[in-house]
Amino acid sequence: MTQSMHMANSFNPAAAVALPEADSELLERRQRVLGAPYRLFYQRPVHLVRGEGVLLYDADGRDYLDAYNNVPVVGHSNPVVRARVSEQLSVLNTHTRYLNDAVVNYAERVTGLLGDGLDQAVFVCTGSEAVDLALRVSRHVTGRRGVIATAHAYHGTTEAAAAVSPSLGPNNPIPSEIELVTAPDLAAEAPEQAAAAFAERVHQAVAALRARGHEPAALIVDSIMSSDGLQGTSPRVLGPAADAIRAHGGLYIADEVQPGFGRTGDWWGFPGQGVHPDLVVTGKPMGNGIPIAGLFGRPDVLDRFGRDVRYFNTFGGNPVSIAAADAVLDELIGRRLLENAKNLGASLLDELRTLATEHDSVTGVRGSGLFFAIDISDGEGAPDPARAARVVNEMRENRVLISASGPAANVLKVRPPLVFGPEHAPRLLDALDAALRATR
Amino acid sequence: MTQSMHMANSFNPAAAVALPEADSELLERRQRVLGAPYRLFYQRPVHLVRGEGVLLYDADGRDYLDAYNNVPVVGHSNPVVRARVSEQLSVLNTHTRYLNDAVVNYAERVTGLLGDGLDQAVFVCTGSEAVDLALRVSRHVTGRRGVIATAHAYHGTTEAAAAVSPSLGPNNPIPSEIELVTAPDLAAEAPEQAAAAFAERVHQAVAALRARGHEPAALIVDSIMSSDGLQGTSPRVLGPAADAIRAHGGLYIADEVQPGFGRTGDWWGFPGQGVHPDLVVTGKPMGNGIPIAGLFGRPDVLDRFGRDVRYFNTFGGNPVSIAAADAVLDELIGRRLLENAKNLGASLLDELRTLATEHDSVTGVRGSGLFFAIDISDGEGAPDPARAARVVNEMRENRVLISASGPAANVLKVRPPLVFGPEHAPRLLDALDAALRATR
Repeated sequence: MTQSMHMANSFNPAAAVALPEADSELLERRQRVLGAPYRLFYQRPVHLVRGEGVLLYDADGRDYLDAYNNVPVVGHSNPVVRARVSEQLSVLNTHTRYLNDAVVNYAERVTGLLGDGLDQAVFVCTGSEAVDLALRVSRHVTGRRGVIATAHAYHGTTEAAAAVSPSLGPNNPIPSEIELVTAPDLAAEAPEQAAAAFAERVHQAVAALRARGHEPAALIVDSIMSSDGLQGTSPRVLGPAADAIRAHGGLYIADEVQPGFGRTGDWWGFPGQGVHPDLVVTGKPMGNGIPIAGLFGRPDVLDRFGRDVRYFNTFGGNPVSIAAADAVLDELIGRRLLENAKNLGASLLDELRTLATEHDSVTGVRGSGLFFAIDISDGEGAPDPARAARVVNEMRENRVLISASGPAANVLKVRPPLVFGPEHAPRLLDALDAALRATR
Repeated sequence: MTQSMHMANSFNPAAAVALPEADSELLERRQRVLGAPYRLFYQRPVHLVRGEGVLLYDADGRDYLDAYNNVPVVGHSNPVVRARVSEQLSVLNTHTRYLNDAVVNYAERVTGLLGDGLDQAVFVCTGSEAVDLALRVSRHVTGRRGVIATAHAYHGTTEAAAAVSPSLGPNNPIPSEIELVTAPDLAAEAPEQAAAAFAERVHQAVAALRARGHEPAALIVDSIMSSDGLQGTSPRVLGPAADAIRAHGGLYIADEVQPGFGRTGDWWGFPGQGVHPDLVVTGKPMGNGIPIAGLFGRPDVLDRFGRDVRYFNTFGGNPVSIAAADAVLDELIGRRLLENAKNLGASLLDELRTLATEHDSVTGVRGSGLFFAIDISDGEGAPDPARAARVVNEMRENRVLISASGPAANVLKVRPPLVFGPEHAPRLLDALDAALRATR
C-alpha cells in the first residue's frame, strides 16, 4: 500500500482490522475529504474524544496512557492554559503592528531563559515556519545559499524546511545547495572522537558544497538529534562542528523544537552540547497545542535581516498564542516539570535498561530527560521494523500510546507530556514488557 | 531610516512624535527584544489593550473604529468563537494522526461551500504555509519548478512563498524559476481586452521560463488581486489565463487568503473570475485570529502528493483551531455577514465615490464587498505616497484605523471586520473626509 510508505506506525486501510461501525463510517468520510496526505497511527486507529493530564479517552470512555505526545507538555486540557487563553479571547487578539505589552513581556521572558546573546525574538506559528525563517535569515546575512544538515534530520514541512529533512523519504527532493552529513553515533564512537569526526564531516560538507558552486550559509542541527537516533546532549559532541561552520563563515542554527522547553530536563539542548548558536528555533510544546513557534537569535543577525527585508507574520505573536505560551512557562516553572523530566527521566531510563536485559529484541535504550529511544532488533542484532510495529500496536491494544521511528523504522519513540509522573511509570513499563513478550 | 523602507505606514522611530511615557518605555523594550523585523503602524503607534466588535481601545480607554483588520472577520473578542475555543480547550486538543470527528466535519463543510470538484482539504496554520504547500504540491505533481505570479503580488513569508511575492521589495530575491506578469488593470483596459491581454502575458511568461530552462508548474493569483491594485472579481478577467496555464500543463492556484470567507460578499473570489482552480489557498479570517489556514484541491492532485510524499503539520487541523473556524462559519452564516459585505459594500462604495468628487487628491476608488482601495494623488494625477501617509495618520489621530499600500504606497486600504454595519459608516466617511481636507 503506497499510502503507508515512508512512515513508521501508519495505518494501512487495506489491512485494517475490524473497527466499530461509527469509526468505519468516520474513517470513510475522512478518506474522502482528507485523503492520502493524512495518515493515521496504528493498525486499529484510536478515536479520541477527551484528554486530561497524561490520559486520553476514546468514544467508549476507555483511557489511554499518553507516552508519546510532546506538544501537550503541561498536560492535556491544562486548566491554566485554558483559563489564560479564554481570558485573552475576551479581551484582545490582534497582530504586532500595534503596541501590546504581552508579546514584549513574553519575548523578554524567553530570551532571559536563553541567555548567550540570543536576545531577540521573532514569533511565528509553527516550527516549520521558524526553520524556514532561520534559513531565510542565514541566507540573507551571509549572501550564500548552501546549508548543511544531518543525514536523517527532520526540520519541517515548508519547501525550504523539507529540503533539509531527508527523513521525509525518497520523494522529498534534496536540492544541490543542501549537503547531508552523518550525525554522531555515540553507540559506535567515544564522545571526543565522535565530536571531532562530526566536525571533520562538516568541513568535508563545505568542500562538497563548494564543488557544486555553493558557499555555506548555515549548519542546522537538532540539539538532541532526535531523528538521527536520539543522541542526547551529554557528553557534548556538537561544539567542534559549530566552530567548523563558523570558520567557513556560516551560521549555526540550533533546532530546539524537540529538546526545547524542558524535554531534556534543561530548558534547551544546545548548552549541553557546548554550542553558542547564532539562531535558535523553537516550536511544538511552546503553547501546549495553541499554534506558536519562535526564532531567537543574536540581534546583529536578526536586525540585519529585518532592516533589509520586509517581514510580517499575521498570526505570529498574537496575544492569544502568547497567553498560551506564557501559561506554559508558568506551569513548567510552578510545577517543577524540568526537575521532573530530569529525575523521572533518569529513573525511567534505568528501568527501561533493566527491562531490556530481559528481552533479546531490545538492543539499545537511549534517553534524554523524558525522551526515550528503544531499538528493536530481530534477535540477531538486525533492525526489525515489523516487530517494532507489532510492539507499538500491541501497546495500543493495551491502551498505552507510543510510536516508532528511525531510519529503519525499528526505534520505539517514548516521549510523554512532562506532567507524566512516577505514578504513571509502572503502566508504561508493564505494557512495554507485555508487548515485548507477546511479540517474541 | 532604513527600518521603514519598503513598507507603507510604518512607524519611524527616528521621527517619532511625543508618546506617553509608558508607551515610550514599552517601545524601547520592544525595540530591544523584537528589533528591526518588527515594524509598527503609524507615526504615533497605537497601544491597544481591548477590542470588541469593530472597536479597539487603547490604554486610556479611547475607542478606535477598526476599518482595517480582515482577520477578526466576525468581530474582535467574538463571544461565540471564544465560547467554542474555551470549551474545546477543556475537552481535547491533539493532532490528526488520531481519529477525531471535528476536523472531518469542518473539512466537509468548507469543501461543500467550495464545490467545483475542490473536494479535499489539508489544514495548516498560516496562509504562508498553505501557499508554500500549494507550490510543493504543484511542483511534485507536474515534476516541474516554474511558477508564474503577478508583478505586485503578495503570497506569504516562507522562502517559497516570498519568492512569488515581489511586493516584499528589492531585497526579497525572485529566483530564476519564477516569472512575473503584470496584472490586469481595469482602470486602463476594458474587461474582455484585459482578460485576453493577461492570458497572452501568461503565454509569454511560459516562454520566458522555458528560455531559462524551466517548465511551468503553476500560475498563482489572488482572486481579487489585492496587492496589484484591488481589481475585484467582476467582470471576470482571470478565466482565459487559467486556461492558458493549463494548456501548458501547469496548475492554477487561487489565492483566497484575502477574498475568501465572505470579504467580497461571496464565499470566494474565483467563481466570479470564471476560474476553476486546481488548488485553493485560504487563511487570515478563517479562525478569527486563532491560527488556521487551508489548502483545498482536486482529490487527484492532493492524493498524488499525499501518496508519494510524507506530509504532516503538527498543529494543522487541531480541534481548537477547528472549533474557532467552525464558529466563524456559524457566525458568517447566522449573522448574514456575506449579505452585509455585499450590500453595505455597494453603498459604501457609492458614498466613497461621491466623497472622491469633492477631493482632487482622490483619483480612483475601487471596491469588492467590504474591501476598498482609494488612490491618493498629488492633484496632478501622480501617486502621492506622502499625502496618503498623512491621511492615514490624520485618521489615526481621529481614531479611525486604516492603512496604505500599493506599488507606489499611495493607495488607502480600507478593509473592516465583516461585522462593520451601516451605523459605523458615517464615522469612517467623516474621518476620511476630514483627513482629506486636513491634508490638502
